[in-house]
Amino acid sequence: MRGVVMYGPGDVRVEERDDPRIELPTDAVIRLAATCVCGSDLWSYRGIESPQWPVPMGHEYCGVVEQVGKAVTTVRPGQFVVGSFFASDNTCEICQAGYQSGCLHRESACPGGAQAQLMRVPLADGTVVATPGMPEPDLIPSLLAASDVLGTGWFAAVAAEAGPGKTVAVVGDGAVGLLGVMAAKQLGAERIIAMSRHSDRQALAREFGATDIVTERGDEGVERIKDLTGGYGAHSVLECVGTPEAMQQAIRSTRRGGHVGYVGVPHDVQLDGIDMFFSHVHLHGGPAPVRSYLPHLIELIWNRTINPGRVFDLHLPLEQAAEAYQAMDQRRAIKVLLRP
Amino acid sequence: MRGVVMYGPGDVRVEERDDPRIELPTDAVIRLAATCVCGSDLWSYRGIESPQWPVPMGHEYCGVVEQVGKAVTTVRPGQFVVGSFFASDNTCEICQAGYQSGCLHRESACPGGAQAQLMRVPLADGTVVATPGMPEPDLIPSLLAASDVLGTGWFAAVAAEAGPGKTVAVVGDGAVGLLGVMAAKQLGAERIIAMSRHSDRQALAREFGATDIVTERGDEGVERIKDLTGGYGAHSVLECVGTPEAMQQAIRSTRRGGHVGYVGVPHDVQLDGIDMFFSHVHLHGGPAPVRSYLPHLIELIWNRTINPGRVFDLHLPLEQAAEAYQAMDQRRAIKVLLRP
Repeated sequence: MRGVVMYGPGDVRVEERDDPRIELPTDAVIRLAATCVCGSDLWSYRGIESPQWPVPMGHEYCGVVEQVGKAVTTVRPGQFVVGSFFASDNTCEICQAGYQSGCLHRESACPGGAQAQLMRVPLADGTVVATPGMPEPDLIPSLLAASDVLGTGWFAAVAAEAGPGKTVAVVGDGAVGLLGVMAAKQLGAERIIAMSRHSDRQALAREFGATDIVTERGDEGVERIKDLTGGYGAHSVLECVGTPEAMQQAIRSTRRGGHVGYVGVPHDVQLDGIDMFFSHVHLHGGPAPVRSYLPHLIELIWNRTINPGRVFDLHLPLEQAAEAYQAMDQRRAIKVLLRP
Repeated sequence: MRGVVMYGPGDVRVEERDDPRIELPTDAVIRLAATCVCGSDLWSYRGIESPQWPVPMGHEYCGVVEQVGKAVTTVRPGQFVVGSFFASDNTCEICQAGYQSGCLHRESACPGGAQAQLMRVPLADGTVVATPGMPEPDLIPSLLAASDVLGTGWFAAVAAEAGPGKTVAVVGDGAVGLLGVMAAKQLGAERIIAMSRHSDRQALAREFGATDIVTERGDEGVERIKDLTGGYGAHSVLECVGTPEAMQQAIRSTRRGGHVGYVGVPHDVQLDGIDMFFSHVHLHGGPAPVRSYLPHLIELIWNRTINPGRVFDLHLPLEQAAEAYQAMDQRRAIKVLLRP
């Protein structure tokens, strides 16, 4: 099969690789209908993270089950499935509490990479969810989005306790931030402030439910949020970037007693205890428990209530993965879908 | 009147000071029935904090209203009241959400110090709560405890979402930690693990509702908590110290998806973003909104459901404040009540 491997910063190649196969009775092998490049893939692409090169890439996936191990009971070959980027048993106390991405037995759901034609998923029963049938092709981008960016934006909104009567601010206008806007809207938030300085992303944020746009950042951004909220700050703030600046902006834009949901993987973020203490905010985040939300997200997509696939503003064949990374790195695309 | 003033580390004096008087129409002046030394007073006593010396000390109080300003409507002279250490208007959106210690107009409730015979409380209507009548003398220590340490332990338990079915661990065996145990018990926690290595404090923790005692600290303490909770960690952990070690112990003792409530004023605490992210815990804390809990706490004390005054294991006349500080500094006493 063909698969994407990164050999170093900026060096993305599509290669012939061995087909994955069932290794454990709890595995499934999936033929991908679509996969994509994640904002977090850019950390290594830009040399900010240095994994052990070369690295098979990708952790977002949906497609048709090709084969399952003997212990798999909830999905069968021929079914279309969406899965989360962490494999989970979905039975331990952590999973049962809705934190499958913190499962006692969690592991990568895509050990061989999801930017490929085929992939092996461990702990298939606890990790992937079948759709009600074979999806119309136009639903595939949205189902793919559910695998990570929608699920992650959703977790940010849940962690920030977005809901009726709440004013929500979203820091970050990447795919996760934009889908955080969508999640806040679906969760019933009264007012949603998207922080963005790019007109195309502002437009998508409005389409997804943003009621206000704030273009300022840093101190000025915080002041704007305060101005818009009677001096108090937002009830709920979603941090969807992972930089120290974004985290500070999120915490400082939140009213005392309010909630910050953070899902950007932190890079060089240090939080000062005394600042946190007097900020009086609730802080919660981490890798999103996508598996927990998948049944509901699939339903919303299947019923065409939401269209999160809109974040894929560039679709390319898998063979053009290098161009996909470049387009995202240069911010020419919000998120690139790859057709295997 | 007589009042306690700290002139430098270890230098506590009781002096003749001007009687406080009504300065603003929202003020009240209270004749103290009891006051006490707080664990946080020891930070400056030990020279770890350096305020502008000399400093009038104390922020825990209960007593009889002597005089009120013209705008005060909820309490009147002759009533016995308990108040919180932050003055609050109790009307802004932050107060209405139960975060009076984050009030938009918050200020110190004891600008002249509460370790004195008399004190002025600003924003009296939003800060103090009258008891149903004049308390029996034996209730006074418990009412005094409600002013800070009980309210703070209560907030830690609420912030950590202690409740039915939950296993709660408490880091810190000072008065706040011990009353955090009491709060967890009152909130219905199933199992309460007190972390303490002092037999007198262990005994009080058990009296307040602890079901288990863990004497280990650091890595070993975390392992013990994991052992006691099926490898998962506690659902709810109360951090009642404020040191980096205590905060780490609290976060690492919490299961993924669980809650840390932190109320120890942080000293040199830095939280690493990536550790926080993968810990998957909820983190919430800050100065306790004691005013929010006072009506309920007063009721529990008045009905003799709880006896938080038990944390005062030494009672001294105000004139012996220096000895009170020394006893707490040397851990000869958990908490010292001062009789003005």
